[in-house]
Amino acid sequence: MARASVVGAGMTKFGVHDTPLTELFGEAAFGALDDAGVEPPEVDSLYFGNAMGGQTENDTHLAPTVASHVGMAGIPAQRYEDACATSANAFNNAVEAVESGRHDVVLAGGVERCTPETGLDTAAMTRIFASASHRQYEQPTGITFPGVFALFVKRHMYEHGTTEEHLAHVAVKNHANGTRNPKAHFGKEVTVEEAMEGPVVADPFRLMDCCPFSDGASAVVVVSEEYADSFEAPVDVSGVGHATGVVPIGDKETPHVTQAARDAANEAYGQAGISAEDVDFAEVHDCFTGAEVLASEALGLVPDGEGGFAAAEGRTAVGGEIPINASGGLKAKGHPISATGTGQIVELTEQLRGDAGEHQLPAPGTGVAHNLGGDAATTVVSVMEARA
Amino acid sequence: MARASVVGAGMTKFGVHDTPLTELFGEAAFGALDDAGVEPPEVDSLYFGNAMGGQTENDTHLAPTVASHVGMAGIPAQRYEDACATSANAFNNAVEAVESGRHDVVLAGGVERCTPETGLDTAAMTRIFASASHRQYEQPTGITFPGVFALFVKRHMYEHGTTEEHLAHVAVKNHANGTRNPKAHFGKEVTVEEAMEGPVVADPFRLMDCCPFSDGASAVVVVSEEYADSFEAPVDVSGVGHATGVVPIGDKETPHVTQAARDAANEAYGQAGISAEDVDFAEVHDCFTGAEVLASEALGLVPDGEGGFAAAEGRTAVGGEIPINASGGLKAKGHPISATGTGQIVELTEQLRGDAGEHQLPAPGTGVAHNLGGDAATTVVSVMEARA
Repeated sequence: MARASVVGAGMTKFGVHDTPLTELFGEAAFGALDDAGVEPPEVDSLYFGNAMGGQTENDTHLAPTVASHVGMAGIPAQRYEDACATSANAFNNAVEAVESGRHDVVLAGGVERCTPETGLDTAAMTRIFASASHRQYEQPTGITFPGVFALFVKRHMYEHGTTEEHLAHVAVKNHANGTRNPKAHFGKEVTVEEAMEGPVVADPFRLMDCCPFSDGASAVVVVSEEYADSFEAPVDVSGVGHATGVVPIGDKETPHVTQAARDAANEAYGQAGISAEDVDFAEVHDCFTGAEVLASEALGLVPDGEGGFAAAEGRTAVGGEIPINASGGLKAKGHPISATGTGQIVELTEQLRGDAGEHQLPAPGTGVAHNLGGDAATTVVSVMEARA
Repeated sequence: MARASVVGAGMTKFGVHDTPLTELFGEAAFGALDDAGVEPPEVDSLYFGNAMGGQTENDTHLAPTVASHVGMAGIPAQRYEDACATSANAFNNAVEAVESGRHDVVLAGGVERCTPETGLDTAAMTRIFASASHRQYEQPTGITFPGVFALFVKRHMYEHGTTEEHLAHVAVKNHANGTRNPKAHFGKEVTVEEAMEGPVVADPFRLMDCCPFSDGASAVVVVSEEYADSFEAPVDVSGVGHATGVVPIGDKETPHVTQAARDAANEAYGQAGISAEDVDFAEVHDCFTGAEVLASEALGLVPDGEGGFAAAEGRTAVGGEIPINASGGLKAKGHPISATGTGQIVELTEQLRGDAGEHQLPAPGTGVAHNLGGDAATTVVSVMEARA
């Protein structure tokens, strides 16, 4: 018994866009509605994600604005902000809304602009990103997110023997995957050597270990299980888990374990009645290569400590035991913050329908998305399944 | 049959605070938890509102941060932003979460700092507030929120003969009410003459027609109906309606009608099985005096066109036909944006329990809260009822 179904999916290319947030979201929203065959007035509510529009473009209260823009003026609409996990949590709440019977058809999605098209340079944008770390205990130290994840991954290297070369393999894999995804920000391959020669951003991360700042939008039409049968190609949402981790970093007992991801995965798997062995492919939050290593273990897709080794051995590549980030992931597909979470849901939907084009996996039955915000704090894990 | 119950309520004094957002929210949260007799680990989820922390203090991703701060690390937590209706919508989603059985005990609330304690002056803060108006169609004109509501109210004056003196009476009433509320930002009375002699902010509004920028926090413990009986003094939530209005202003057919408020009220009254005649008192979103006039009509508490006359005749005063903003309202109690919505729920809870102290109304049975965001766009109307 599914909790809900996705019946339409849309996203912009992730990359550089000079369009306002409202219009950029409109492109994804109309894509999802067209895909579902749903007219805007049929949508009951909007679950909308945007993390930084106030800081980047002095643009807030966007939920009713985008609802009006896409022809849904008047419906209940809400904006979520949970750092990089913003739109996965909007999706989580959308699933809950149709499961409970509050609504029948809802739109969930997100939009962000992070590139210099906003008028802000990389330093200004990095400061804005850092607003998602602890204002009193972390920001004054000067730490920004490469540093936050470097702390987690350094510990993982110490505990498990993960190496910089392992991390480079994650970049190589995801860049290769991205070349087969026309919506990806980056379309070129990198080699292990190139990755390992890049400038250090925050030890152990070099340039190629870090995802880009991207612009983009994504959206999905979510309907109640009972309503789903009237659509052409529903994909079922069988579980969504949501947990947070303790903040600030200094209070985490075992930072490399990313406990919130484990809690969210356990909840999602439990709802779906599956275990990690049943997962055919996953999209995980590789904001940094090392973050993918931590996520692959937290989701149970590889044994603890083997995440780096698994990537280096090709076990997480397309064609490997458990393909991770066949879309290119944040690393190559791009990371327009609040478009990332529902962007993963778009990818799962397309893969499970067999509509993923050049990067289609061979007939997967069960996919998992893992979206993470802040100091590995907000984590949302979603399980989706193809209909038999 | 209630949708949920409020079993604990807490708020800071509204006014000027030099404490960080996390600590300020903590004061309200601990107040609500203590009032309910609930320990932090008993809370299943946090529905948190903050509108402007990113813009004012470079502080985002606050939901897990405040969850950790108040001893709830690990629980699902989400931040809402819907302009001035932020925490009413967090409350709305919290009610839905316990009604559907997703959670048993949740905390809903919000926090904001808007005074020069943030380091920002009135001009900078006004620009940040204006981020909730349309980025492309309104902000470039230079309009800010006094101007937005002035447009609505000017039309109401034209249609119905509402006068500046009527508006002054709203200020006089709410300031008088505020003197009896120790949590209110302002504790002094004003006269009609003083109000009408103030400097013009945006015609027809003078200084005393405008609510202040305030700092503050509020929170409530919300539990499922079945769980409520184990608490000492539950107050039932019998309806919550949520609607949005078309954005931008130029697309509104009848701006003074505030259609979203009518839609939200109809939904809330329908859920509660009541009509406007059954309402004993209301807290409405008087960001400007004229906004109270529009709200009193949209909620059906006074006939259309009579809102200004009703205020001038004392019909909406404490002791009148339908007391509006006995707390002092935004006008005198203050308006710390994201603390305002759940602040109204705190007020309803205390009034319906008979705990409102010096501004207690005589044994009210049914109260309504009306919280509004942006261009009269996001509107949440809540109906609460005392237990017999």
